[in-house]
Amino acid sequence: MKIFPVIMAGGSGTRFWPLSRRARPKQFLALAGDQPLLAATVRRLPPLARAADTYVVCGPAHAVAAKKLLKELPARNFIVEPCARNTAPCVGLAALHVAARQKQGLVAMLPSDHHIARPEAFREAIAGAARLAALGHIVTIGIRPHAPETGYGYLKVGAKLPGKAKGRNHAHKVERFVEKPDVVTAARYLADGHYLWNSGIFVFRADVILDEIRRAMPVLGEQLDAIQQSLGTPGYKKTLARVFPDCPSISIDYGVMEKSQKIVVVPADFGWSDVGSFAALPEVRQTDHLGNVAEGDALVIDGHDNVVIATRTRPVAVVGLDGVVVIDAGDAILVCRKDRAQDVRKAVDELARRGRDEVL
Amino acid sequence: MKIFPVIMAGGSGTRFWPLSRRARPKQFLALAGDQPLLAATVRRLPPLARAADTYVVCGPAHAVAAKKLLKELPARNFIVEPCARNTAPCVGLAALHVAARQKQGLVAMLPSDHHIARPEAFREAIAGAARLAALGHIVTIGIRPHAPETGYGYLKVGAKLPGKAKGRNHAHKVERFVEKPDVVTAARYLADGHYLWNSGIFVFRADVILDEIRRAMPVLGEQLDAIQQSLGTPGYKKTLARVFPDCPSISIDYGVMEKSQKIVVVPADFGWSDVGSFAALPEVRQTDHLGNVAEGDALVIDGHDNVVIATRTRPVAVVGLDGVVVIDAGDAILVCRKDRAQDVRKAVDELARRGRDEVL
Repeated sequence: MKIFPVIMAGGSGTRFWPLSRRARPKQFLALAGDQPLLAATVRRLPPLARAADTYVVCGPAHAVAAKKLLKELPARNFIVEPCARNTAPCVGLAALHVAARQKQGLVAMLPSDHHIARPEAFREAIAGAARLAALGHIVTIGIRPHAPETGYGYLKVGAKLPGKAKGRNHAHKVERFVEKPDVVTAARYLADGHYLWNSGIFVFRADVILDEIRRAMPVLGEQLDAIQQSLGTPGYKKTLARVFPDCPSISIDYGVMEKSQKIVVVPADFGWSDVGSFAALPEVRQTDHLGNVAEGDALVIDGHDNVVIATRTRPVAVVGLDGVVVIDAGDAILVCRKDRAQDVRKAVDELARRGRDEVL
Repeated sequence: MKIFPVIMAGGSGTRFWPLSRRARPKQFLALAGDQPLLAATVRRLPPLARAADTYVVCGPAHAVAAKKLLKELPARNFIVEPCARNTAPCVGLAALHVAARQKQGLVAMLPSDHHIARPEAFREAIAGAARLAALGHIVTIGIRPHAPETGYGYLKVGAKLPGKAKGRNHAHKVERFVEKPDVVTAARYLADGHYLWNSGIFVFRADVILDEIRRAMPVLGEQLDAIQQSLGTPGYKKTLARVFPDCPSISIDYGVMEKSQKIVVVPADFGWSDVGSFAALPEVRQTDHLGNVAEGDALVIDGHDNVVIATRTRPVAVVGLDGVVVIDAGDAILVCRKDRAQDVRKAVDELARRGRDEVL
């Protein structure tokens, strides 16, 4: 069964500043392991999928860097969005490219900036999802929660799909999508047992998703039709540049999935983390016996549960503090309370206001 | 009345690392105001004393830097100790130099690394102390406390000296010297009204202090006699190098002052701070309305009572933290809880253990 992975690498967050920059967003950082998250995302795919069938969607600012990082992929497999329009247009555009190769091609949409600790379990889950997708389902991967996470969206699982039971990973209808909950609600979800983390990973047939987009978002459907007609012709790039910026900037979850009757969920457990902020690094990097991440020329004295990332040559000494993030990116330094790691953007906003583009 | 100020610049602390280094100790840092503390100490003296009469005592490692910093002083006024032996030998050696110029010369011993907000009040206090010292007293300056400081030694004032009352600054006997107290004791001292901060500033006649040293520390007295005989001869340097390292390493407070019957205290209030650690910087530097010291390319977001010192060009963003010290010294970075600022030495010790001499 041929699978076409499509890796969404258009993100441009600020939560990893000063490691991340406009020119080097999160997916280009080696936050977990020793290679950039984007490269790890591509390299955990074989033998599930071939490089020749693997696509990367990104913005024009990062296309050169992505191609340089991922030399194993054919240049034509980099789909460059003229501008960021959230995930619904991104998924539609990717589906057009796959459909041009194989009308009912099986697409696995994958975020480029997550960490997966157990790649083999991941590939098994995708393969299982692909078998369901071949039948016409839109399959999302739900992660079994092990903590009352407030940083993730949740899926409430509904009735089992009819058919042969396949152990714990049997597919279910999705009863509903749930936004990031508060901690009390998250604890309730964890105890309830019917809620899964929304991994943002979807598997579907190209023709099925394009039909669902046309049904749920008719304007986007027409825009995609216009692009489809130019695909493979010299006019493609011009058409894309004309049509794409007008597409509605909506997520595929909100625009299509939450309204679709075809959506099903497969529970899985492959050591997934979305690496949402510096506060998540202890989940995906080595810690000392006091829970400190201390990398490069870092020195933690009388402190626990800190995240300290230094350069290789400049010592960063942290004394008498717990639960802080200290990042020396060479040309900019961040010190932040770990439970305020999402507020790093405020520093970025302030530096932008001051016109400090050289460090953004 | 001629006064010979002697500035003790032999200190080599670690509490201002990474701003301070072995080659650039605290007194060479512009911690308060825009010139190094040592330079400010010298330059607040006129018209109380002339540059030609002002001495600096320092170690061999810092003599070149001190001379370069203080071009207004004659080269012969730099007294170089072969090695650090605390303040008793330092005071004795300086008294020898002054006595060689004027047997009953009035010496004002001044720490080189304190801040004084009101120099005119300071000069008045020293002039008043010198008038008492001329009569044979050893005069210490006691600072009226305005907070229950645990970082300072205290003096308990005793009976008033007989003679004309001169307002609040009338001299008293010193009932006793008190080590740094705990916070409860410090609060009691503050409420009591009879305790003053020990500024470490002493004024005395050269002949009087030498007699008192001979009485209280006879071994040191003999060592000073040996040095005195060589003073002004070609053999001075050799004699000093031979004798001085054997001198007892004891503070003048402990070795002489606490045992002397001649000691008196003059209360004063001239905006004194010993700038004991990074935690003291808000007393001596500009703060924003939330109590933050933010210098250089520093950015404090949602935080109060922080001390953030950045370079001019590298942004340091502090987010969601209160009461922390963040220092970017260019080649080393410190992040420390402000109430643990004295533990900066632990970082220095650990870097020394790792052989990181290039940043020490």
